[in-house]
Amino acid sequence: MRALRLLAWKSEPELVEVDEPTPGPGQVVVRVGAAGACHSDLHLMHDFEAGAVPWNPPFTLGHENAGWVHALGSGVTGLEVGQPVAVYGPWGCGTCARCQLGIDTYCENPAGAPVPGGGGGLGLDGGMAEYLLVPAARHVVPLPEGLDPVQAAPLTDAGLTPYHAVRRSWGKLPPGSTALVIGVGGLGHVGVQILKATTSARVIAVDTRDEALALARECGADLALRSGEEAVAEIRAATPGGRGADVVLDFVGVDATLRMGAASARTVGDLTIVGIGGGTLPVSYFSVPYEVSIQTTYWGSRPELVEVLDLGARGLVRPKITTFGLDEAVDVYRRLQAGEVAGRAVIVP
Amino acid sequence: MRALRLLAWKSEPELVEVDEPTPGPGQVVVRVGAAGACHSDLHLMHDFEAGAVPWNPPFTLGHENAGWVHALGSGVTGLEVGQPVAVYGPWGCGTCARCQLGIDTYCENPAGAPVPGGGGGLGLDGGMAEYLLVPAARHVVPLPEGLDPVQAAPLTDAGLTPYHAVRRSWGKLPPGSTALVIGVGGLGHVGVQILKATTSARVIAVDTRDEALALARECGADLALRSGEEAVAEIRAATPGGRGADVVLDFVGVDATLRMGAASARTVGDLTIVGIGGGTLPVSYFSVPYEVSIQTTYWGSRPELVEVLDLGARGLVRPKITTFGLDEAVDVYRRLQAGEVAGRAVIVP
Amino acid sequence: MRALRLLAWKSEPELVEVDEPTPGPGQVVVRVGAAGACHSDLHLMHDFEAGAVPWNPPFTLGHENAGWVHALGSGVTGLEVGQPVAVYGPWGCGTCARCQLGIDTYCENPAGAPVPGGGGGLGLDGGMAEYLLVPAARHVVPLPEGLDPVQAAPLTDAGLTPYHAVRRSWGKLPPGSTALVIGVGGLGHVGVQILKATTSARVIAVDTRDEALALARECGADLALRSGEEAVAEIRAATPGGRGADVVLDFVGVDATLRMGAASARTVGDLTIVGIGGGTLPVSYFSVPYEVSIQTTYWGSRPELVEVLDLGARGLVRPKITTFGLDEAVDVYRRLQAGEVAGRAVIVP
Amino acid sequence: MRALRLLAWKSEPELVEVDEPTPGPGQVVVRVGAAGACHSDLHLMHDFEAGAVPWNPPFTLGHENAGWVHALGSGVTGLEVGQPVAVYGPWGCGTCARCQLGIDTYCENPAGAPVPGGGGGLGLDGGMAEYLLVPAARHVVPLPEGLDPVQAAPLTDAGLTPYHAVRRSWGKLPPGSTALVIGVGGLGHVGVQILKATTSARVIAVDTRDEALALARECGADLALRSGEEAVAEIRAATPGGRGADVVLDFVGVDATLRMGAASARTVGDLTIVGIGGGTLPVSYFSVPYEVSIQTTYWGSRPELVEVLDLGARGLVRPKITTFGLDEAVDVYRRLQAGEVAGRAVIVP
Repeated sequence: MRALRLLAWKSEPELVEVDEPTPGPGQVVVRVGAAGACHSDLHLMHDFEAGAVPWNPPFTLGHENAGWVHALGSGVTGLEVGQPVAVYGPWGCGTCARCQLGIDTYCENPAGAPVPGGGGGLGLDGGMAEYLLVPAARHVVPLPEGLDPVQAAPLTDAGLTPYHAVRRSWGKLPPGSTALVIGVGGLGHVGVQILKATTSARVIAVDTRDEALALARECGADLALRSGEEAVAEIRAATPGGRGADVVLDFVGVDATLRMGAASARTVGDLTIVGIGGGTLPVSYFSVPYEVSIQTTYWGSRPELVEVLDLGARGLVRPKITTFGLDEAVDVYRRLQAGEVAGRAVIVP
Repeated sequence: MRALRLLAWKSEPELVEVDEPTPGPGQVVVRVGAAGACHSDLHLMHDFEAGAVPWNPPFTLGHENAGWVHALGSGVTGLEVGQPVAVYGPWGCGTCARCQLGIDTYCENPAGAPVPGGGGGLGLDGGMAEYLLVPAARHVVPLPEGLDPVQAAPLTDAGLTPYHAVRRSWGKLPPGSTALVIGVGGLGHVGVQILKATTSARVIAVDTRDEALALARECGADLALRSGEEAVAEIRAATPGGRGADVVLDFVGVDATLRMGAASARTVGDLTIVGIGGGTLPVSYFSVPYEVSIQTTYWGSRPELVEVLDLGARGLVRPKITTFGLDEAVDVYRRLQAGEVAGRAVIVP
Repeated sequence: MRALRLLAWKSEPELVEVDEPTPGPGQVVVRVGAAGACHSDLHLMHDFEAGAVPWNPPFTLGHENAGWVHALGSGVTGLEVGQPVAVYGPWGCGTCARCQLGIDTYCENPAGAPVPGGGGGLGLDGGMAEYLLVPAARHVVPLPEGLDPVQAAPLTDAGLTPYHAVRRSWGKLPPGSTALVIGVGGLGHVGVQILKATTSARVIAVDTRDEALALARECGADLALRSGEEAVAEIRAATPGGRGADVVLDFVGVDATLRMGAASARTVGDLTIVGIGGGTLPVSYFSVPYEVSIQTTYWGSRPELVEVLDLGARGLVRPKITTFGLDEAVDVYRRLQAGEVAGRAVIVP
Repeated sequence: MRALRLLAWKSEPELVEVDEPTPGPGQVVVRVGAAGACHSDLHLMHDFEAGAVPWNPPFTLGHENAGWVHALGSGVTGLEVGQPVAVYGPWGCGTCARCQLGIDTYCENPAGAPVPGGGGGLGLDGGMAEYLLVPAARHVVPLPEGLDPVQAAPLTDAGLTPYHAVRRSWGKLPPGSTALVIGVGGLGHVGVQILKATTSARVIAVDTRDEALALARECGADLALRSGEEAVAEIRAATPGGRGADVVLDFVGVDATLRMGAASARTVGDLTIVGIGGGTLPVSYFSVPYEVSIQTTYWGSRPELVEVLDLGARGLVRPKITTFGLDEAVDVYRRLQAGEVAGRAVIVP
């Protein structure tokens, strides 16, 4: 079968021929219906080098995958060949306290995982191929009715990541509260949708680009503001008594957005760093409003994937998608790099 | 001024002339803009007798009130004459642990309250008059922009009661979950609106009446079912794997609806008894699915009133309303009794 | 090997010779170090009949098990032969939403479980034998340092059940609160220990027997009361302002204790039915204090077993134990029936 | 009456004669039984200057106060003259959403407070005098039986502050978890006591001083470690699998302790900055374990004060105390500055 593989660090991926996988005990082979092309793959190709992560090329790209069950290894129950499924992407050891709750993202025994701190398309073969070997059946999640693999694939990362970030803050988003979304790109616009679908908070979106602000409004943002000198004052003015945003989700993560987020937050609020923009927020006793909880977030849990797929099936969350064939995959990453792809690029093998 | 007063148990209220109230220290007089006529007032008039509750007539009716600040007693801060406000209805002692959190409904020192277990329109003079004396400024809640007293009044009870009931179950209503609303009347239809506004749960509504099912759909119910022999099976069939409803809100509260609710619930779900229908649910180890939390609910808290007013101001929650003059108030209760009023009857003095 | 087997409903178990089990893929054989003899086994022997549960004899008794890993089936990772372990008792399908969180007690796909609604000693062979076949490695929980199988075995049920019941109420047990334990028997005395170890609530224990009240005090109860006419008044008098117990745990579950529990509860409290005493509580709008959450509870989850084992290893929870040999097992149940065993009877093969 | 007053910034306080206060409507005068001398008072005397905070001398010192009700202003209910009470220290506007929940620390309308962002001893007259005027009765908290004003006074700050910090992390401190206390001084040693009283977490304490480590052990710490190069490795080694501390409470707050705390934390843990040591923690996507929630904390809420007083009354929390007369107060601060006072210095007028 054909597969888009990263053969070495600091190289472009290549479409090559490889053997079809066969499932061992407890494993599942999925016929790929869709594999999302993620900006983070560009980092894999261009920025990583040996030693940066505990795994190395070659491997097939694609960590946002959905398709149909193709073959079941011995001992697998609860799945049927032909069934449409999404693939939960972070693959941990399966036995630590975190993995046993489906939180493979924070596996505490990475030495016991198929690859430490990785998954399909991240050290192991991913979904940019005709078939994908999933090393444990628990990562295979049946699709709810009304959701096809093309829609489902980006939900496994571009959906799950903002969902996990929003979900941690539900308790701070009752009626009357305000959520601030900084950066309305591939994940941020889904974040706006998720906030509107799961809470009754007012949503303020901030971006530098007109089309992103338009997208934010289309996704349901109550207010869309251009970032800049005045943004913090405008955000505060849009909250009752100028108290600030109860929850800030920074999908950019550069120094300036982190500073804006901290300055815009209400006391006892949440500031979640989603975007890996390389910024740093200096936190001291007086630099941030009292008790604002500042934390990073990384992907999400398996039970949360089930939940975000439900939102997708009911049309409440719909990432923008452009589809491409596997032939075009090399080119897609070039266009992604150039900012020429509208919405999420999804490869349909 | 004129006031609609209950002068004795088991009598019709009368529109009589009384003195205008003046505020003592810490008190507020509100010029009434709207006072809801509640079904429970009919119980007051027709069913109660001396000894049933720790207070007695005469008093002015009306426990769902909104209007404008008319006069402030000494020591009151944070309010301005002319400001539009809603009145939080349950008036507790103000100093016990519950009252200090604005949960006057469960005041633990009723002997210290203006009247034990009551409030305006419930033992003390209520809002069916030109002016209403509120015995403590903390019960006066400023209206958010976009909400006038006529819309606000029914939110203080017909809105607050279902809001409190729904809010306790938010943690059991993530995407993929199901909420069951039994009885789509004056409170139930608002319950459907609140579920849709504050969660992403699927909402199933059950009623015996066609027009109630239509109202449920109009309020956003995903499925509206006629109650009857088959209802439990239909409800279960509408949930994944027949597991049942994660949350059941019974706005009727008769034996049959309680039994239907218990039979329709998912293990570890919630069953909340909102309606005072006089029914009894026999709870034993095996009569209800494991760990279904069964509880009553009564009105709501002051911070919750602030939240439900926000939902009202943004149009996310809109009780159906028909307005009447104070002259018509006696007649309104007759029509309420006869089931002739569409939506909530609101008196506008 | 020898095994204590129930060969038919309504019969005494017999010590017979059976083959040693061998593990299939994903399975584990545990050399049994200890197996608790539970009162519920007496129901199995004496009260059950065909059709009562979806499984039938013959099977080896013993659903509270601990020992050492003896043999690993193919594909099992994260365990080592010789390692001391406890066995999580409820064995669900492993793939439904509940099982994936280790909540096999409420498995929503019982048809996919090794036996529907059962486990080892409950339809499948249990631990009253030299070796125990565990059908999925995830049920095998490593013992923390400081805990041997004899201490660990009763924690898997007599510890886990009250732990699960207490844990659900942690949020209602801050300093100043009161927990009421009704029935200080095999589970109740552990419940007192768990309340003292994990909360700072005052604990009131109620029982009919002097020795149970002494045991309650020994386990840390702040007040031990004889049940009777005056109990409710005494419980209320022991709480601030007579407001009642924030949390009631009924380890008996007969009509009288349920009624006492409901009458003793504070508004917005919890009433958890742990004991399967056959009682019924009639719940109506006015029969129970407002918003008391009434629910049953059944065993506990796998992550909770890890937590209760930690409490055991640190000496914070110590069920009373009397040990017996496998030879004595038949007799142990006779003595259990007669009430002649002090603390939990544990069989050490 | 005599009062210890700060007459100007950057000066020593003086014991002077002032008029006894009389209560206005809604106010209470407390006869002071004890007033704690806090390290933060030294900052007031030596480091602050005009403009640093929105209030200025002269005012009487003392923000940790307890005593007996002396006189009640008009309209005050629920209190009796002679009753022993503690005084909740942060005095907000009383009408914003935060103050209405007793969270005056984060009052959102400081312009409406008696003094913005302050309280008794912080801009307004405090408790280092014979009588203290409390500007709103809601700040006066009855003492539970078993607690006298001398024990109660330090609980209002040295108890309440660590209590609030610990309480926010209860959900992350089940059995098997680890809490790390950095700095076992006046607040830290109470933090250890509170952790032991309200959770079953293992407690590791770190300090640079032998006597502090001894105090930590006396307060119940499971492990007391000297801070230094090896501390992070030792902390991790003391947690299961080296996963780190679930909760870190930094009572020092300098660069080095913040860095140590972040390096010692488990993913999805809490890092709370209690100490105002002037340090800064640079937070970026990769500088801290995933999803560690970093936040400051300031004092606590009124309902929390009720809870911490309960812990005090039951002997579960006992700050170390040395008492002095009002005559000695000027000298006490000199000795405090010199580090010569063992435990909390409490002035008994």
